[in-house]
Amino acid sequence: MKPKRIHNFNAGPAALPQPVLEEIQANFLDFGGSGMSITEISHRSKWFDNVISDAIIRVRRLLQLDKRYHVLFLQGGASLQFGMIPMNFLSAQDCADYVNTGTWSAKAIKEAQIQGKNIRVAASSEDRNFAYIPKDIAFTTNAVYAHITSNNTIKGTQWADFPDTGDAALIADMSSDIFSRSLDISRFGMIYAGAQKNIGPAGVCLVIIRDDFLSKVPVHLPTMLKYTTHADKNSMFNTPPCFAIYTIQLVLKWLEETIGGLEKMDALNRKKAQLLYQSIDASEFYKGTADQDSRSLMNVTFRLPNEDLEKEFIAQAIANDLGGLKGHRSVGGCRASIYNPTPLKAVEVLVDFMKDFEKKKS
Amino acid sequence: MKPKRIHNFNAGPAALPQPVLEEIQANFLDFGGSGMSITEISHRSKWFDNVISDAIIRVRRLLQLDKRYHVLFLQGGASLQFGMIPMNFLSAQDCADYVNTGTWSAKAIKEAQIQGKNIRVAASSEDRNFAYIPKDIAFTTNAVYAHITSNNTIKGTQWADFPDTGDAALIADMSSDIFSRSLDISRFGMIYAGAQKNIGPAGVCLVIIRDDFLSKVPVHLPTMLKYTTHADKNSMFNTPPCFAIYTIQLVLKWLEETIGGLEKMDALNRKKAQLLYQSIDASEFYKGTADQDSRSLMNVTFRLPNEDLEKEFIAQAIANDLGGLKGHRSVGGCRASIYNPTPLKAVEVLVDFMKDFEKKKS
Repeated sequence: MKPKRIHNFNAGPAALPQPVLEEIQANFLDFGGSGMSITEISHRSKWFDNVISDAIIRVRRLLQLDKRYHVLFLQGGASLQFGMIPMNFLSAQDCADYVNTGTWSAKAIKEAQIQGKNIRVAASSEDRNFAYIPKDIAFTTNAVYAHITSNNTIKGTQWADFPDTGDAALIADMSSDIFSRSLDISRFGMIYAGAQKNIGPAGVCLVIIRDDFLSKVPVHLPTMLKYTTHADKNSMFNTPPCFAIYTIQLVLKWLEETIGGLEKMDALNRKKAQLLYQSIDASEFYKGTADQDSRSLMNVTFRLPNEDLEKEFIAQAIANDLGGLKGHRSVGGCRASIYNPTPLKAVEVLVDFMKDFEKKKS
Repeated sequence: MKPKRIHNFNAGPAALPQPVLEEIQANFLDFGGSGMSITEISHRSKWFDNVISDAIIRVRRLLQLDKRYHVLFLQGGASLQFGMIPMNFLSAQDCADYVNTGTWSAKAIKEAQIQGKNIRVAASSEDRNFAYIPKDIAFTTNAVYAHITSNNTIKGTQWADFPDTGDAALIADMSSDIFSRSLDISRFGMIYAGAQKNIGPAGVCLVIIRDDFLSKVPVHLPTMLKYTTHADKNSMFNTPPCFAIYTIQLVLKWLEETIGGLEKMDALNRKKAQLLYQSIDASEFYKGTADQDSRSLMNVTFRLPNEDLEKEFIAQAIANDLGGLKGHRSVGGCRASIYNPTPLKAVEVLVDFMKDFEKKKS
């Protein structure tokens, strides 16, 4: 019997490419002829070595990383990175800039402050409820890094271009838009991304870090909290989250071989987002919440004329096999998350549903 | 086509119950009628809430936990716990005892020392290469806790009984023998276990922690490193490793409903270990490495007359679909890990193979 599959607009954990799920399923009891499940093989076996090596090669190729960059797979999500970044890179003499574009930026700022680090909020869009990405920011000239959240899942905003931060290297939380578009990595000291939106299941965080940042890591941190530990041991100081890394490997393979790389992915993502935003803009019924020039290509946030209609919209969507359209519990409204794995077809179905719903209710 | 399956004696990640793997596989594209994979559903959905709630209920029931104990699922493995325990529980005025029974104990000790905490190694079996579990230990009277590693995967030793630690509560790393036998939890302030041996895949650590220990947690730690954060948010402060928790839920269901609980599991584990140790003791060819009264029921470590024979033994075992018998890279020799999921049948096949190999070579 063919399994039931819905159109999945979850914000994270989110949809994965169906061919990837089918490959995992087909090989789940016998991975690569090992006679064991991917969940049962040793992380030091040739089987897993092939998995993690291929995942790293694909990350390097997709982002055109040069030798200075290390690719790590860590546990604890972006949330642990919020703490590790200032812990590893800011000595008592150092300072760093942060841009506050919403909930996740604010959490990153809070973790630096808890540690008593010298940081400055160089810009914030809090004045208008984070509906935009700040422009013309004056960054601190001697900052070690400038931290941004490249895409804001809750408010539906995204940096279209990255800011000029002078001598300070950019550090970006790309949890919700990694591999969604082409990227000039040379401006970044580090990028990190919880996997559960664009590249895999929950339980692993991709970290890409430049050599000169590793040299800042102090000696006397707890071993698991030092980036050098994981860079020195190729993410295998301790047992890594093997299943999650395996899924990432398959998603990146799909991204390269089925989609055709970042430029093609970028074009497809723009097409999906355009379709949805055009449909919203053409209507008096739906209203986007983010400024037009700051709109996210990944999380399309919108409101209906009132909360009762929003509730009904979400309920009827579910009845029509369109899931995950409820806005984040902190802001309400509606949100369609359309990360890499979401097919164009799903967006087309959603747009049709929205038109139908509007017709019935207005 | 029926998938190939070998007899899997890996030390971790290790074998999982085949019915659990089959259930994951069958539902992988459509979890519980959601029309989404378990890897695609929101951690805040009713589907995942059912999963984590059931997993917690089963942990509580299996260990007969009273209200004082909290059940958490954290990332970073036991290795991160080594650092978090002293960070959370030892103020500048406090001291703690550690017992050193091998590699993993030593790592736990090292992480407390890195933080400059006041700890004492109350006993060690290093004098005889960790071949035994120390007895008659004099613990420090005012220690906040006494830390032990309940089973030592590399050296093949295990605490048969837990020591009397006076007023100091026991903290145990049970990564490699959690749920393998009945347990009197009341003597423990905390137990923790990386899942990838007895209860699930790599990528999640089960932590059981008593209320009075939570009250020691200082305010100004990084949020992700405070046990109170995770206890307050039922392990969902950030996105948890959903797939790994789901697998644990299914393994615990299998343990309760198919095996019949901890006493039955204990009896089966003893039968498996006895069969293997009797076979080793009856032979002049194989030689156990641990003292008899300290032998592990989980990891049976043994040597052959020389290293060439060991290499041949491991290679021929693999040719006969018996995998994972190589000793840890730090000690060499052979090791059969026979955690909960390993069926009696696998041990019977191994014992027959060992007899055949001995006959051919002696």
